[in-house]
Amino acid sequence: MKAAVIGLGLIGGSFALSLKEHGLASEVWGVERSERNAAKALELRLVDRVIELDEAVRDADLIALATPVDTIPLLVAKILNKVTPNQVVMDMGSLKGELCETIQMHPNRGRFVATHPMWGTEYSGPEAAQHNAFTGRTVVICEREKSDPDALIQVETIYKTLGMPIVYMSAEEQDLHSAYVSHISHITSFALALTVLEKEREEEHIFDLAGGGFESTVRLAKSLPETWAPIFMGNKYNVLDVLREHIHQLQILRRMLEKDDREGLLAAMKKANTIKRILK
Amino acid sequence: MKAAVIGLGLIGGSFALSLKEHGLASEVWGVERSERNAAKALELRLVDRVIELDEAVRDADLIALATPVDTIPLLVAKILNKVTPNQVVMDMGSLKGELCETIQMHPNRGRFVATHPMWGTEYSGPEAAQHNAFTGRTVVICEREKSDPDALIQVETIYKTLGMPIVYMSAEEQDLHSAYVSHISHITSFALALTVLEKEREEEHIFDLAGGGFESTVRLAKSLPETWAPIFMGNKYNVLDVLREHIHQLQILRRMLEKDDREGLLAAMKKANTIKRILK
Repeated sequence: MKAAVIGLGLIGGSFALSLKEHGLASEVWGVERSERNAAKALELRLVDRVIELDEAVRDADLIALATPVDTIPLLVAKILNKVTPNQVVMDMGSLKGELCETIQMHPNRGRFVATHPMWGTEYSGPEAAQHNAFTGRTVVICEREKSDPDALIQVETIYKTLGMPIVYMSAEEQDLHSAYVSHISHITSFALALTVLEKEREEEHIFDLAGGGFESTVRLAKSLPETWAPIFMGNKYNVLDVLREHIHQLQILRRMLEKDDREGLLAAMKKANTIKRILK
Repeated sequence: MKAAVIGLGLIGGSFALSLKEHGLASEVWGVERSERNAAKALELRLVDRVIELDEAVRDADLIALATPVDTIPLLVAKILNKVTPNQVVMDMGSLKGELCETIQMHPNRGRFVATHPMWGTEYSGPEAAQHNAFTGRTVVICEREKSDPDALIQVETIYKTLGMPIVYMSAEEQDLHSAYVSHISHITSFALALTVLEKEREEEHIFDLAGGGFESTVRLAKSLPETWAPIFMGNKYNVLDVLREHIHQLQILRRMLEKDDREGLLAAMKKANTIKRILK
């Protein structure tokens, strides 16, 4: 099988590596708009060749999109205009609502499989690509009933070979859940970094102390704005919903502290502790 | 040297292990109010013996306190009432303001060294103690000029032997800085856990997706309420100061998202990215 990965950043680069290393593709091509990233991806041997999008759509058996989420709906629609019944198209983006709606009535909708592998780091670009990145992580597949059975099986086989548990849900559910378990973590990290940077203007040595707890809470603030702004904006209503709830919870803790409400603080933290059963 | 560690939890247990493993003490005793934790500490060989506080204060050359922060000021005052000029007392708590004020005029103030090793995990109790926990972490020493030179050198030697860079500051500076690089991270984690748990009541399967980013932002929410409530309350004004700023930053991001202000979001995130220079 010949695979083409569109977008050779953190996700696309890691996926290209995985396809090669697990023997899932005989050839892996890359499509990449940035000349710098294209050269870097070749240097790091993430892909065998960098080619043009048209060539990829014409010759690849599998076309996998890993570009910023706001570019995916139109790109998928245009690619589906050209694919044959022997080709499979998939995306790896964080959002599915607008994407699935855009291609809902496309005559070639069946050739497309909507996926969201739940992996990432705060680093970006081809140099951030990792070996065995996805192993053990969950992947979401949306609207499986709208994909042709052979296309679905091909994509499922890839993710199973990579050792990824598959969860199926609607596009709406996936966008809501992603807001809660991924997007809000990034917003709080960005805000925490801004909070501390604001104070640093007055207090020079504040960071001599930055320890492990701080590092883990704030590391996502290193993430690429060009990746995350489209995600937040594309999932605006879900993200605002969870952001309002988060601010509300912070205000409750703040009021307890203002009132020296020790029992209230203890009860709230004990409740928060129950997050244990979710984190392994 | 005979050392006594008061409080055999995460910090005290790890410190006892470090003293033994680095040959810093010929004997390490523990004082622990909870029978369960005392038995566990012996079983795990964190200490050679568990003894009473009076015995520890009478016989130990070094007395190290690792109990909850709200218990430390009175405990240190009472211990200082009894120590001889050959003994050294130190604490390892997260707060120094009230502690240093309480013992400010004590005739034996010089025998005490106020320290805050910047290490911890979200786990607690003797079973959470780790080998080589402190190596490479920064330790803060407060009011060094108020400690007798020999006491200061003894404590500095211990931390240097453990491979810890030492930073000196006033008690006020340390409490302010700790609010920004440690306490606020815990509050945001607790609030994030509460936010997600709130939503989980409606959406059963939200956690099938919980990935690496979520885990790292929310892991501190597993921390022990009995440890952290006294820290937040003991550092109330600093913690409220940073919490208000954090809520303010979240509200700015929220308003940008509400107004579809893409440029504003990108600029804020780019600024947050500069946290990179602090996190190695």
